Amino acid sequence: MSDLQLWTAATPNGWKVSIMIEELREAGHTLEGLQVRAIDLMAGEQFEDEFSQRNPNQKIPLLIDGELNIMESCAIVQYLAEKYPSELLPEQDKWQILPWVYWQAANVGPAFGNKLSYTRYMNDVPEEQKAHPLARFNKEAQRLAGILEQRLGEQDFICGKHLSIADIVVYPWVRGWKWSKVDMSDRPNILAWLKRLRARPAFERGLAYGAPEGEVDQWSEETKARYAKAGNRISKT
Amino acid sequence: MSDLQLWTAATPNGWKVSIMIEELREAGHTLEGLQVRAIDLMAGEQFEDEFSQRNPNQKIPLLIDGELNIMESCAIVQYLAEKYPSELLPEQDKWQILPWVYWQAANVGPAFGNKLSYTRYMNDVPEEQKAHPLARFNKEAQRLAGILEQRLGEQDFICGKHLSIADIVVYPWVRGWKWSKVDMSDRPNILAWLKRLRARPAFERGLAYGAPEGEVDQWSEETKARYAKAGNRISKT
Repeated sequence: MSDLQLWTAATPNGWKVSIMIEELREAGHTLEGLQVRAIDLMAGEQFEDEFSQRNPNQKIPLLIDGELNIMESCAIVQYLAEKYPSELLPEQDKWQILPWVYWQAANVGPAFGNKLSYTRYMNDVPEEQKAHPLARFNKEAQRLAGILEQRLGEQDFICGKHLSIADIVVYPWVRGWKWSKVDMSDRPNILAWLKRLRARPAFERGLAYGAPEGEVDQWSEETKARYAKAGNRISKT
Repeated sequence: MSDLQLWTAATPNGWKVSIMIEELREAGHTLEGLQVRAIDLMAGEQFEDEFSQRNPNQKIPLLIDGELNIMESCAIVQYLAEKYPSELLPEQDKWQILPWVYWQAANVGPAFGNKLSYTRYMNDVPEEQKAHPLARFNKEAQRLAGILEQRLGEQDFICGKHLSIADIVVYPWVRGWKWSKVDMSDRPNILAWLKRLRARPAFERGLAYGAPEGEVDQWSEETKARYAKAGNRISKT
């Protein structure tokens, strides 16, 4: 039995952890007793005292392990990888892999996240005010995609022949390229990698956390509108 | 003797590592044999093959340890903290501290960095095109400063009574608040913390890496112009 609790929602940062949990299960760690609690971002549950006291940054995901409150999706993934050893972060490859986890945190997340916010969440901001940041973050996201494209031309996964936590943390932002409008259609290596990962049972299950039934790969217009509305609201807080 | 090489420059991300090295020395790790190589960002040395082959993200700092090439400033700091154990990352406090390191990487660095770029590096972009992102990143930087201000009202350092790597990685971006114009003048706890850290001999030495003589705390107009020019150039690549 474990005392683990995951407080999360169906967003790229949330999927990093839900996919990680499911890959650990594939690796034989049952994580029996893990409780998953859906946080309603639209209702602002992440701003309530109960949440803020455990994570002053007021963002999902949050992992609770007994006395420990762990914020930041990449920190949670590293924590789980160390607590439940597997081929996702082999000790001897640790420092080939962790720099790519930090690379996601400091580069991919911010660039794709800002591009997404300006693309989808600011419908009330005039186009001319968004043009510069849209171009800036698109260019930065494409620079990062270029690095990934080259790397995935040399090997099947970000850190070599096997899946690692680097793939798990980078995947959720890249997979949403149509939603964030960061064009990947001329990136065959990335597209093949996305397909390779999506075919794994753990990714299938991890992406389903909190997703409306039947909408894992394609949101309905209603879901899109709901996300855009929530994003618009969050972009103003 | 160590085989360590640090390739760096006098920037916030560079200072994280140079301060870390000097704090490790204060803790008794001599890091004898460490070589520090100044990378000329203005000349674009980070884009040359020699650099790119070791760090495809083409940014400083880069740590080389024998066969290992480690990119990302926060990854380097975590690596050094684990290789050279000290009170900066005590094993029993590891998961109180690392989430704050990731918080810096994913939140503080991007928000302060984007605010700085729009404030100082885009002199050729019309004001009305910069107004929205300037407001957005200032607001986000202030949100993060608010979290820090509250925390530093309860304890002297980010993770408790003692300096940890969380302070080391957060300090360099926050210290430059006048340069990035993220106003901290009404944040007494942050200002006291900045002063507390700046008074440490290791911070004094770490900040001096690559800084012009006598300009550790205040750049000359010439240095400011040089940084603005380099930043402008980098913001276009």
